[in-house]
Amino acid sequence: MLAAMTTATNLPSAPSRLADPGEGISADELALAGRNHALLLEAMRHDVTPAGLHYVLVHYDVPDVDATTWTLSVDGKVATPLSMDLERLRAYPPVSIPVTMECAGNGRAHLEPRPVSQPWLEGAVGTAVWTGARLVDVLADARPTGRAVDVVFTGADHGVERGVEQDYARGLSLAEALRPDVLLAYEMNGQPLPPQHGFPLRLVVPGWYGMTSVKWLTSITLTDAPYDGFQNAVAYRVKQDVDDVGEPVSRIAVRALMIPPGFPDFGSRRRIVEAGHVALSGRAWSGRGVVTRVEVSYDGGTTWADAVLEPAPGRFAWARWTATWTATPGDHELSVRATDDTGDTQPTSPAWNAQGMANNGVQRVHAHVR
Amino acid sequence: MLAAMTTATNLPSAPSRLADPGEGISADELALAGRNHALLLEAMRHDVTPAGLHYVLVHYDVPDVDATTWTLSVDGKVATPLSMDLERLRAYPPVSIPVTMECAGNGRAHLEPRPVSQPWLEGAVGTAVWTGARLVDVLADARPTGRAVDVVFTGADHGVERGVEQDYARGLSLAEALRPDVLLAYEMNGQPLPPQHGFPLRLVVPGWYGMTSVKWLTSITLTDAPYDGFQNAVAYRVKQDVDDVGEPVSRIAVRALMIPPGFPDFGSRRRIVEAGHVALSGRAWSGRGVVTRVEVSYDGGTTWADAVLEPAPGRFAWARWTATWTATPGDHELSVRATDDTGDTQPTSPAWNAQGMANNGVQRVHAHVR
Repeated sequence: MLAAMTTATNLPSAPSRLADPGEGISADELALAGRNHALLLEAMRHDVTPAGLHYVLVHYDVPDVDATTWTLSVDGKVATPLSMDLERLRAYPPVSIPVTMECAGNGRAHLEPRPVSQPWLEGAVGTAVWTGARLVDVLADARPTGRAVDVVFTGADHGVERGVEQDYARGLSLAEALRPDVLLAYEMNGQPLPPQHGFPLRLVVPGWYGMTSVKWLTSITLTDAPYDGFQNAVAYRVKQDVDDVGEPVSRIAVRALMIPPGFPDFGSRRRIVEAGHVALSGRAWSGRGVVTRVEVSYDGGTTWADAVLEPAPGRFAWARWTATWTATPGDHELSVRATDDTGDTQPTSPAWNAQGMANNGVQRVHAHVR
Repeated sequence: MLAAMTTATNLPSAPSRLADPGEGISADELALAGRNHALLLEAMRHDVTPAGLHYVLVHYDVPDVDATTWTLSVDGKVATPLSMDLERLRAYPPVSIPVTMECAGNGRAHLEPRPVSQPWLEGAVGTAVWTGARLVDVLADARPTGRAVDVVFTGADHGVERGVEQDYARGLSLAEALRPDVLLAYEMNGQPLPPQHGFPLRLVVPGWYGMTSVKWLTSITLTDAPYDGFQNAVAYRVKQDVDDVGEPVSRIAVRALMIPPGFPDFGSRRRIVEAGHVALSGRAWSGRGVVTRVEVSYDGGTTWADAVLEPAPGRFAWARWTATWTATPGDHELSVRATDDTGDTQPTSPAWNAQGMANNGVQRVHAHVR
C-alpha cells in the first residue's frame, strides 16, 4: 500500500531558490554535481552508452538492497494483489529495448537566473539497452479494477526534499503504464542493474524524462485518484515562479548534442581544432516524436546547415548525425539543433522556468581553430 | 620514442589560479565536476567498488582506441625494444590485486583559498580489483640498459594544459617501476577496462595517487635522465605558491571516510539521523604504510573515540572500520581520522597548498538527530 510518502516535516531542508545574479555554483550544488555525473560527451561515439558513462541522478542515497530478500508488491486497486521476487519477474517474457534517457533538469546550469538544484550543463543523457518484464504483463496478472486511474511506483530510496520526507515515488496514468514498451527492468546493457541505476529492479518508461523511471522499485500501487505526491505535484513541474503550481514534466523535448571536436584545454574544456575539414558527429533524440532534421551552425547560430541524419536504432533511441565543417583559423562557436515530426525545434536560447525543467536550448561549443 | 610531449604553445588555455575569497565554483570548474565523478560515499559498503561508482578523472577526452589495432611500445634505454598487442600482454602470467586509488586532488574544494581545478570534495577514491601483466615481467623482456633511470608512461589522451600541449604522460623511477605489484592492467573487477578507466590498457601503481596510473597506455619509454614532463614537473607538485617548483606528489596520504549515516536532504546533502544507537562504518587507507588506528569524533573534533578496524583485504586496499554512535537529538558534526604505521595522522584542518594536492584533512559530516 502507499506509505506516508509525503510527510511535511520541520527537518532542516534546503528550499527552492534562484541563484543571485552572478552567483557562482554553491557548495550545496557542488555536492550534487560531484555525485550525479553527466555523460562524457565523447561517449556519444557509442550507440549504447557503456556502464559508468551514462548519466545518473540519485535524489537521496543509493539504497542497500539485498536482492535475495527483495520483493516487489503490486497492490491498491487491483483484483489480485501480488508479491514477487526477481525469479518470478524473470519468468515473464523478457523484452530488451534501447532507450535514450535524459534528466528533466538537463541544461539547468545554463539558465539565468539559475534555479539552485543539481547543476547540469548539457550531458544528463545516455542510451542503454534495458531488459525486463513488460509492466503490462505484470499488471494483467494483478487485474486492475475499473476504478484504477494512476499507477504509483515507489523506490527504496528515502530522503527529505524541501521539507517533505519521502520514499522517492512517482505516479503515471494507467493508460501510459499499459504501453507495451514500459519495462520493469532488471538488466542494463546485458548485465544486472548497477547499484546506482536501480539494482535490483527499476521502471523504464521510454520517451519520458528520467524522473519517471523509478529506481530501486519496491511497490506498484494502483490508485483511484491522480497521484499528488511530491515528485509529481511539486518537484517535476514547469513553473514560471517558485510558488507557481506549474505544468507536469512528461516526455523528452527534442534535442541534439555534438561530440566536441578537436582536443580540450584541461581547465576550461574549450576546444582546439586543426584547420581544414573536420568530421563532426553526435546524437539527436525526442520523446515526443521522431527526429526529422538536424542542423549545425558554425557562426553562433546565425546560419544553419543540414547534417546527415542516420536512422535511429529504435523508436526511443538516439539517432546518429554527421556533418563536415570546413574550419578556418580563429575562434568559432558551434551549435547543433534538432527538429522532430511534431514540428518542435530546439530554441537558440533555452526557455527559462523556475525549476530548470525540460529546457532544450542548443548546445554551444567554443572552438579555437589553428 | 618520447614524442614532443611538452610543447609550450600560445593556445587559449586556463592558467593556474586561486579562487577569490568567497568566490563560488566557476563555470569552468563545474564543467570539470560534471565529467569527473566522485565515489558515492554510500558505495563504501562494497569491498570492491562497482563500475561507475569508482571515482574517475579524465584530464582531456576519453580517447577512441581500437583494441584490434592498438599496440604498446616499450623502447628507449632497453636492449630489446618491444611492440606488443593485447594478446601478447595476456600471455604474461596474469596477476589480480585489489587497489584503493585516490586522486591527488581529493578534498581540493575544501581548501581556502581554493585552487581552481577539478573541484573535488572528498569522494575522489575507489577500490577495484585490477588484473594484468606485471610490468617487471614485460621490462625483463625489454632488458633495460644500465643507463636507464626513469620509465615514462604515455597515454593516448591529448590536450593542452596551462598552455602546454601534450599527450598525458608520467615518469616513474625504474626502481619503483620494478616493484612486483605494478601492473599493466587490462581488466577492472573481472571485466575489460571501461573506456573511462583506460581501455584497453592502463598502468596501475598501487599505493600512489591516481595520476601515476596512466590510462590508455600506448608507450613505455626508459630514459637516462629523470623525466621532466608537465605532469611530473609542473602539475602534480605540492607548491606553496603558484610559481613555486614544489615537491613531487607520490604516495597516498593516510585517510578515512565514513558513510554518512541516516538519510539526506536532497538539496544540501545534510543528514537526518534517528536518535539512539547508530551503526557507523567506512573505510581507511594509506599508500605510505598500514592503517593502524581509526578514530571517530561526534563533537566537531574535540574528542575522539577508537573505531573497530577490520583487516584490509590487501596491502593496497582499504580497510573497513565500524563504530557505534549514541546519537542524541540536536545538531552534530561527525568526523573520522586514520593513523598509519609511519605515525602519520590526518589533520583536523587540511594542509593548504597552491594546487590542492595530497591534502588529507578529516571529513566533516553534519547530522541533525531527531
